[in-house]
Amino acid sequence: MSSTTNEKIIAAKAALKLVEHGMVVGLGSGSTSAIMIELLGKACREGLNIKGVASSGISEKLAIKEGIPVISLDVAPKIDINIDGADEFDTKLQLIKGGGGALLREKIIAHFASKNVIIVDSSKKVEQLGSFPLPIEVIPFAQRKIMDELGQMGLSPQVRLHNGKEYRTDQHNSILDLDIQGQTDLETLQSSLINIPGIVETGLFLNTTNLIIMGSGNETKTFQ
Amino acid sequence: MSSTTNEKIIAAKAALKLVEHGMVVGLGSGSTSAIMIELLGKACREGLNIKGVASSGISEKLAIKEGIPVISLDVAPKIDINIDGADEFDTKLQLIKGGGGALLREKIIAHFASKNVIIVDSSKKVEQLGSFPLPIEVIPFAQRKIMDELGQMGLSPQVRLHNGKEYRTDQHNSILDLDIQGQTDLETLQSSLINIPGIVETGLFLNTTNLIIMGSGNETKTFQ
Repeated sequence: MSSTTNEKIIAAKAALKLVEHGMVVGLGSGSTSAIMIELLGKACREGLNIKGVASSGISEKLAIKEGIPVISLDVAPKIDINIDGADEFDTKLQLIKGGGGALLREKIIAHFASKNVIIVDSSKKVEQLGSFPLPIEVIPFAQRKIMDELGQMGLSPQVRLHNGKEYRTDQHNSILDLDIQGQTDLETLQSSLINIPGIVETGLFLNTTNLIIMGSGNETKTFQ
Repeated sequence: MSSTTNEKIIAAKAALKLVEHGMVVGLGSGSTSAIMIELLGKACREGLNIKGVASSGISEKLAIKEGIPVISLDVAPKIDINIDGADEFDTKLQLIKGGGGALLREKIIAHFASKNVIIVDSSKKVEQLGSFPLPIEVIPFAQRKIMDELGQMGLSPQVRLHNGKEYRTDQHNSILDLDIQGQTDLETLQSSLINIPGIVETGLFLNTTNLIIMGSGNETKTFQ
């Protein structure tokens, strides 16, 4: 097992201790969330009584396979805790998410969750967000014109591809990956982007996270 | 012909004079835009050389039927003029749009158009926006939770229905109609709404309109 995978497992095991009987748990997407879902599924099979709300079709399938009872966000009275990964984070608990393409549902669940816990390996920690390209979800109807505008803003948009074709999200939208290196005012950047009609959501998670659990070697470090 | 229909025709005829050879024209949606598209189609059949970019599937079909060459927003080098209707407007050129459910594509086209002209009958003029419910387009995944949040904000969200089922937009999203009567700070309202993950766009058009042409009896009045 790689040291990165080991750190993901350590972080997920620490997050598992925060999950209590009767909770509704938000299930993230991506490789670290998949480890979390496997751990939660094992705990459910051993008697833990929780329900899960999935942030992507892939996570929903995995959760059902592993034995977590999945319900829709519509019928969940609340989300007690949401556990998800991140592509990058800083010590101000700001994140870039969406490398796996599920940023919109992840952000919706984070917005409506009572507590947001992020689990990561130590490679995800950065001084300044932006080494990882920022994914944004856009309406295909407006894609080309949005790319022109973002290009003029210096953000070098790239269309996300999958198997040689344009990637489509669970909502049948496109993903553009932006170069935000050197952008220090992320609140203003978020506001500028979200106000362009046709940009549905961005992978900047600036004010949603309560706790980050980072695997670091054989230990965890937390940020809150 | 009703006086309202007559006013729509008068406004559309005035807008037609702003359309010049070689232009790319944004085609709105709704009953007034349908009149505009019919006039533009007749002009095209008589030799006017323009191209149209449609804001809805319905407008696209009508434009093609009437003889306006339709191109996609992707390939339009620019939109020289966009002509659309409104459900309400005030003298600050602020609009509520989306009664017909096409607010997202309408707003995208308005954002990328060089000039935005709104054509209306005189019943659409109000002192303060809000007698007409504000439509917003939302991701169905988040619909119920968004309704809870908007309810807590006092906006009394109602799910748009069509033939007894939930209405779906051209992007397969839902429309919620909000009661914004008494809301005077519309910029803040727009910002609050657009920052809720899962709200794709709102029908508040606050800073896009250059000219409003209103039919009034047998004359037009303009606001700019």
